[in-house]
Amino acid sequence: MKQFVSVNDVKNVTQLVQDALDSKANPFGEKKIGQNKTLGLLFFNPSLRTRLSTQKAAKNLGMSVMSMDLNTHGWRLEFEDGAIMNSDKAEHIKEGAAVISQYCDIIGVRTFPSLTDQEKDYQETILSQFIKHASVPVISLESATRHPLQSLTDLITIKEHQKTNRPKIVLSWAPHPKALPQAVANSFSEWMIAADMDLTITHPKGYELSPDFIKNTPIEYDQKKAFEGADFIYTKNWSSFNDYGKIIQPKSNWMITAEKMAWTHEAYFMHCLPVRRNVVVADEVLDSEKSLTIKQANNRTYAAQAVLKNILK
Amino acid sequence: MKQFVSVNDVKNVTQLVQDALDSKANPFGEKKIGQNKTLGLLFFNPSLRTRLSTQKAAKNLGMSVMSMDLNTHGWRLEFEDGAIMNSDKAEHIKEGAAVISQYCDIIGVRTFPSLTDQEKDYQETILSQFIKHASVPVISLESATRHPLQSLTDLITIKEHQKTNRPKIVLSWAPHPKALPQAVANSFSEWMIAADMDLTITHPKGYELSPDFIKNTPIEYDQKKAFEGADFIYTKNWSSFNDYGKIIQPKSNWMITAEKMAWTHEAYFMHCLPVRRNVVVADEVLDSEKSLTIKQANNRTYAAQAVLKNILK
Amino acid sequence: MKQFVSVNDVKNVTQLVQDALDSKANPFGEKKIGQNKTLGLLFFNPSLRTRLSTQKAAKNLGMSVMSMDLNTHGWRLEFEDGAIMNSDKAEHIKEGAAVISQYCDIIGVRTFPSLTDQEKDYQETILSQFIKHASVPVISLESATRHPLQSLTDLITIKEHQKTNRPKIVLSWAPHPKALPQAVANSFSEWMIAADMDLTITHPKGYELSPDFIKNTPIEYDQKKAFEGADFIYTKNWSSFNDYGKIIQPKSNWMITAEKMAWTHEAYFMHCLPVRRNVVVADEVLDSEKSLTIKQANNRTYAAQAVLKNILK
Repeated sequence: MKQFVSVNDVKNVTQLVQDALDSKANPFGEKKIGQNKTLGLLFFNPSLRTRLSTQKAAKNLGMSVMSMDLNTHGWRLEFEDGAIMNSDKAEHIKEGAAVISQYCDIIGVRTFPSLTDQEKDYQETILSQFIKHASVPVISLESATRHPLQSLTDLITIKEHQKTNRPKIVLSWAPHPKALPQAVANSFSEWMIAADMDLTITHPKGYELSPDFIKNTPIEYDQKKAFEGADFIYTKNWSSFNDYGKIIQPKSNWMITAEKMAWTHEAYFMHCLPVRRNVVVADEVLDSEKSLTIKQANNRTYAAQAVLKNILK
Repeated sequence: MKQFVSVNDVKNVTQLVQDALDSKANPFGEKKIGQNKTLGLLFFNPSLRTRLSTQKAAKNLGMSVMSMDLNTHGWRLEFEDGAIMNSDKAEHIKEGAAVISQYCDIIGVRTFPSLTDQEKDYQETILSQFIKHASVPVISLESATRHPLQSLTDLITIKEHQKTNRPKIVLSWAPHPKALPQAVANSFSEWMIAADMDLTITHPKGYELSPDFIKNTPIEYDQKKAFEGADFIYTKNWSSFNDYGKIIQPKSNWMITAEKMAWTHEAYFMHCLPVRRNVVVADEVLDSEKSLTIKQANNRTYAAQAVLKNILK
Repeated sequence: MKQFVSVNDVKNVTQLVQDALDSKANPFGEKKIGQNKTLGLLFFNPSLRTRLSTQKAAKNLGMSVMSMDLNTHGWRLEFEDGAIMNSDKAEHIKEGAAVISQYCDIIGVRTFPSLTDQEKDYQETILSQFIKHASVPVISLESATRHPLQSLTDLITIKEHQKTNRPKIVLSWAPHPKALPQAVANSFSEWMIAADMDLTITHPKGYELSPDFIKNTPIEYDQKKAFEGADFIYTKNWSSFNDYGKIIQPKSNWMITAEKMAWTHEAYFMHCLPVRRNVVVADEVLDSEKSLTIKQANNRTYAAQAVLKNILK
């Protein structure tokens, strides 16, 4: 694997899931793979699960880890080619990415979208510039439009819990007080399609995702109809793609409740976390035995471990 | 040891001190104990000694360490059960503690009191919620009402320097420009009582500590009388417990000076640091040969090492 | 080596360069030197290259690393002897440096100048206080008046690329929107003199550096004349030393361009980074094959590795 920024970087998704399960079965058995190798983690935005699980994965492989929070440890970077840098940006991405490549064998980058400039966000300006100017493999720790380590984690967790060959999976929008990226939903769709899952997406009108990610996945605007027969409910809020970055309707009645889970085929509940309790999902669902959220969080380590070992090999 | 948040978690205080002295005698001889184990350090508040000494202790035991400063690296946590999370708190402690438990074998938490809500602070709301929702052992890196790693350090340092079986130890209040927690004083009292030391507490009227911590320890409002015959003067400022979190009287004449140290039985001077020079204590005392403050700081490593190895065993 | 804060701490500059090149040839062959040793990195100011390269160097030597950003992780330190600490500074450098020395075998400190108080800056008040009160060796990660790890890096890079025994090296001032320290320029001059290089300094009138650093190095106010016959152009902005900390003239015509590089003897271009593109230097120069900036960044690791191993031995 040369980089890991989307499912398109993965030759064999099934094998990658198996690699992760192998790491999970024997997390400390791969310590030689990362010997004398260094992972750099660069955060333009806050992170808890990704920060800890990716560090843990690297340590399990015997790698060194160096983390930087650009906003508190460093300075603002310039991303425009040809810029006359006489304002507040102290370093160009050309130097930034090339320099960090001198110290790291793999670089992880977290960079959220602006949610104001759709074109720039969907062109993945920052991540692309990083990749272009880095001389080592780059992995996404969540970018403007995708969160592939999360999606791989989700697929691993589904594989561990599915009872049929092709379970019905429903990606359901849910309400949230803040405007959030589409990245998790985009990426989840992309990976479920790649893994040939039976995916349905449900959301209020106006929250359609980009067709580049969901392809011809069926959209069901009636949440109840969507939930019928579902084996997995994957919940996530996102802001509007078409009315870019906006909360067009609060729709608090889309919150996931026990009553709604009863419409399903005894479905598991999934969410990438962090989650707003009693806004996105009711306590009763999150605290039920059907909730896989903490198991998903645990699988983040093995998703990252599988990706890192495939890049190092 | 299942957790370490107060002296009540310790079966045998004398043995724990001995364990720390054993680590001090041979700090790198215990590298196998922590192999493939990870310590997570979570800071809701600033930290220097605790941050560095606990990391050092974990490394001495062969552990990996992952640190997070929640305020700069992450987001605000919700601690109320049943909360409708539609304001500024992005993650509930239920998920936060459970998730971090997926990546760490032991979690250290630093969380200071509000100093505005006595009941909430003295119920240790944040630390208790963490313990409740974590699935791995929790150690306190100083909480609202206690600082047990500091108190263990203090006991180790006293054991190293005491010349009699039951030295006279005086915990003396001293002035400070800011309102500070009672945690160090509470905790010190608790540990000295557990170790059966001859403890006297001296402070101006109005600075009485919670009886839950000091039990029937004698209080002497006359600093001079208290100091007479003392072998150790342990100094610390704290704000009022009864008039909760307030500086009721500045009392600059309570500063520790060489003149006051002369009232004692050639006592050693102790303070947990950081200390305001010439406000809490005069330069002449801190810079004297009788000051144990830097030795205390050094013992922080071995206190943490003893606690970690007891939990790992 | 007992400390590393200037070229004066180095007995044999040529040997130190050779030690760095040895580390570069076999970076992981020296893992035993730092076993059970800890490097503490203290940042009073932002850092990217220094932070990552020094960590990397220490890991290559088998050391543990603990980093602290004093401004976000800790509190403000007091540096005045005899201060009555009743304002906003929570800890005196006397305790700070002594305490950190309990946990670290070597301490690296980054502390920028005020650019308002020349005397205080040029007496290296903060670094000197640190050294005075630390009980372990201190290395400078850039101080008020010097950046010796950068200068050693620069010398290594020149040694790798020089085609004659005594190449002509030109240190050229360049414009910058912010007032910057003289540290890099001072330090570069000092090291080039120590290595007996043919150094010329060029800058607009008013930007004279302190004679304590440049000694009798020729100053040429005409940039074109200075560049003639140069083998290396080392560019850096600095604010005025005499009109202390001021930008006395913007002088945008001093930017380094391809046209100016053509005046030289096919010179290499060097800069310590971060650099403001198209303000300090034109894209065409930075992106040319003659630019050594990324190679300099890479050599930061081996400069640090050479210094650390010399101190540890």
